[in-house]
Amino acid sequence: MGSEGEHVLTMDTLNPNVIELQYAVRGPIVARATEIENEIKTGTKKPFAKVVKANIGDCHATGQKPLTFIRQVIALCTYPELLKSSEFEEDAKERSRKIMAACKGQSIGSYTDSCGLMVIREDVAEYIAQRDGYPSNPADIVLSTGASDGIKSVMTLLLTGGKGKDVAGFLIPIPQYPLYSAAISEFGAYPIPYYLNEKTKWSLEVSELERALADAKPHCKPRAIVVINPGNPTGAVLSKENIKEIIKFARRHGLFLMADEVYQHNIWAEGAKFFSFKQVLQEMGAPYNKMELASFMSASKGFMGECGYRGGYAEVINLQPEVRAEYYKSISAKLCPPVSGQTVIDCIVKPPKSGEPSYQKFMAEKAEVLSKLKEKAKFVTELFNSIEGISCNEVMGAMYAFPRIYLPEKAIKAAEAAGQTPDSFYCFALLEETGICTVPGSGFREEPGTYHFRTTILPQMDELKTVLNNFKTFHLNFLEKYK
Amino acid sequence: MGSEGEHVLTMDTLNPNVIELQYAVRGPIVARATEIENEIKTGTKKPFAKVVKANIGDCHATGQKPLTFIRQVIALCTYPELLKSSEFEEDAKERSRKIMAACKGQSIGSYTDSCGLMVIREDVAEYIAQRDGYPSNPADIVLSTGASDGIKSVMTLLLTGGKGKDVAGFLIPIPQYPLYSAAISEFGAYPIPYYLNEKTKWSLEVSELERALADAKPHCKPRAIVVINPGNPTGAVLSKENIKEIIKFARRHGLFLMADEVYQHNIWAEGAKFFSFKQVLQEMGAPYNKMELASFMSASKGFMGECGYRGGYAEVINLQPEVRAEYYKSISAKLCPPVSGQTVIDCIVKPPKSGEPSYQKFMAEKAEVLSKLKEKAKFVTELFNSIEGISCNEVMGAMYAFPRIYLPEKAIKAAEAAGQTPDSFYCFALLEETGICTVPGSGFREEPGTYHFRTTILPQMDELKTVLNNFKTFHLNFLEKYK
Repeated sequence: MGSEGEHVLTMDTLNPNVIELQYAVRGPIVARATEIENEIKTGTKKPFAKVVKANIGDCHATGQKPLTFIRQVIALCTYPELLKSSEFEEDAKERSRKIMAACKGQSIGSYTDSCGLMVIREDVAEYIAQRDGYPSNPADIVLSTGASDGIKSVMTLLLTGGKGKDVAGFLIPIPQYPLYSAAISEFGAYPIPYYLNEKTKWSLEVSELERALADAKPHCKPRAIVVINPGNPTGAVLSKENIKEIIKFARRHGLFLMADEVYQHNIWAEGAKFFSFKQVLQEMGAPYNKMELASFMSASKGFMGECGYRGGYAEVINLQPEVRAEYYKSISAKLCPPVSGQTVIDCIVKPPKSGEPSYQKFMAEKAEVLSKLKEKAKFVTELFNSIEGISCNEVMGAMYAFPRIYLPEKAIKAAEAAGQTPDSFYCFALLEETGICTVPGSGFREEPGTYHFRTTILPQMDELKTVLNNFKTFHLNFLEKYK
Repeated sequence: MGSEGEHVLTMDTLNPNVIELQYAVRGPIVARATEIENEIKTGTKKPFAKVVKANIGDCHATGQKPLTFIRQVIALCTYPELLKSSEFEEDAKERSRKIMAACKGQSIGSYTDSCGLMVIREDVAEYIAQRDGYPSNPADIVLSTGASDGIKSVMTLLLTGGKGKDVAGFLIPIPQYPLYSAAISEFGAYPIPYYLNEKTKWSLEVSELERALADAKPHCKPRAIVVINPGNPTGAVLSKENIKEIIKFARRHGLFLMADEVYQHNIWAEGAKFFSFKQVLQEMGAPYNKMELASFMSASKGFMGECGYRGGYAEVINLQPEVRAEYYKSISAKLCPPVSGQTVIDCIVKPPKSGEPSYQKFMAEKAEVLSKLKEKAKFVTELFNSIEGISCNEVMGAMYAFPRIYLPEKAIKAAEAAGQTPDSFYCFALLEETGICTVPGSGFREEPGTYHFRTTILPQMDELKTVLNNFKTFHLNFLEKYK
């Protein structure tokens, strides 16, 4: 309790977990980028015309268009008068009627069940079954406010309520999408980092998983392994064999599997294919197909990029019935995910079918987005690899490049003097000189002594070329300056 | 870590905080109500035609209509082609243009800042300033995914990271909206219940606050006091004097103020007026106007009832700047609240103005909703008070009645034998015999030896009359059965 007259919340009394928590994707460099944007607005002269926010996978922000069918369905649900309008396709109208009929009072302004509308959960299960060739139970589907919310809800179940050596440990990839480390900090849990192997296209080696787990065991209660596939920030797409090894590892050590598969629609590399953990688990048969697995998906990525709608789901299988009941109880006080976000998910998992009025347009719009991303993935990989002092593993999937920068010793020393990690120092300089906002590799963690940054591949191709040109100029100057 | 072959998650290994957590509004009685609904669907004969879900403040579920302006603005943002349609009013179009212009890529599918769109935060601040007569800073406004999300974010700041006597304590009203007790359980924090006084219209007495705090001090670090005004489930509306006393109490003891004001538009009693904690704090001047205060508002209640959109905000004042930075960092990994929910908030805080095309309709629709609720509040209060064995404080505000039931000794014993709290026993019987789903008072906590239930006042008047008739019959039979 504070004293009379003093602040209750000071840096001394604030939740220490909050102080520890970092989320680099929206961290200090982004704050500086926004400052610069405001400086430009108020007329300050800069060596560049505008800031390019390549720090976050925010698809529409760089000009990607929403899919017509999705927006039609949501508009109809929002304003049902539009059912009378010939502007809207019949299949969009039918979908909106189905969703509204499932809503209490036929309004998307009503709360839904905490797991989301059952009709949508059924469509998700059908999508999964078709994708994998193995059944999916709608009762295992939990819609969420973006994938992030679903991920945190599952992590909450795995916490131990203990302290010190009794805290829950979570195996997380390095480099990793920093939601996981942020949530671990917030929960006071224990991160167990396992290094992906940059030399072999960011592959995930079981020997490294064993090493990480062995190191962590004295310090925590290991509970789960998080795998991001396709990877973020790496873009690596796991082979089926690799997934099998991971599953066997998890089984050997009694770990809960958490598969972050939000980029499952974003596969670029020739010969790469997305295999869901669910599918591989089923394929492996007993005893693996009885393991606890949570697989996460989002409305924010893929070909739809509806980040602002906060749609997502988890398929969580093989829970004990009482545990499942506790899980559903634990999310009940949130009430429910936003119904328009649930609707986006429905449109993604059950798109228009061949012969239906929206089909052609949907497929064309989807193909456009994906082909452009594929083109950009290739372009960006080649470009980074063509520049002295940079190497970049192939962007096999997802929507980021995570190039490695080989920084001269003088730059590393300058960074130390400035109190920054070397890649932060580099990225801040890049921002100040070119307006390009990326995220330093240290924000995702990396093998010590290696430096990276993450950029999205989202800007339109023209802009991307200009941006990368400016980047190249900056980089070569930087190498020169600190050689 | 689990062993090979065993479930990772069992009732023994599940997060104990999750096991402890309860949220009665969606608790076991609601699960049973849903079961009964399904039984009816599959043809099972019941003494009633349908289940009436009077357990949750879900406005549209019982036939309340959304406001046209709100839905037009959202539809336009969703599907900007509609800007060409004469079906939509010019002021709705203008609002949608303003919001889309503020979105990156002009799409509501883009992420926004984690605190929400600045143009909306500015409108919220303007609303608050006009309501209270004191300025509000947009930088203090944090949009959230419903009020619930905003409330938990602030509570997270106040946790201590400690265990045992070092856990954070939160003063919460009894009876209370059980989000608070659920969050406290989830966080492993310490609840400090203070009893509202049923004899004096659920008033909040400082002597009781002092008592509660003194009792709790040996067991925790008291950090904050939660006040719900208008009250949930009580509907009590605090006088300005009462609010001043609470503020002085909080200052004396160095407590953070949390004011849940989601029902601020729902004021029914003659002579009752909503005073915001913010206004009273400012009016009291120094030193009170420098106290830390978080005030919460939602898109789910009031006259709009847009529960499914998950809109809300917190105004959080007088934080130290470094603490505020930490707060905003702590919410950054959620990314942002759903943009359509942010849009609902904007329409509520900045409704059409006199002379604008949507104004008349907006005001008429708003008045319709509020007048009906007011009528129902009065009706329900009078009805409950006319029934033997029940008394009910006036429903001064919000959207619930929380009648007291005087249960015969035999009923209390029967409840014990059934392993239920007496009001659970009563409410389950009510559900089974009439299909009316309410929430037992024990779910909100209550003075020991007193029994209550919470019902919404939301069903349409015709249905409400029928429901309450059936209730009365049940109640008198119940008294007879257990006399």
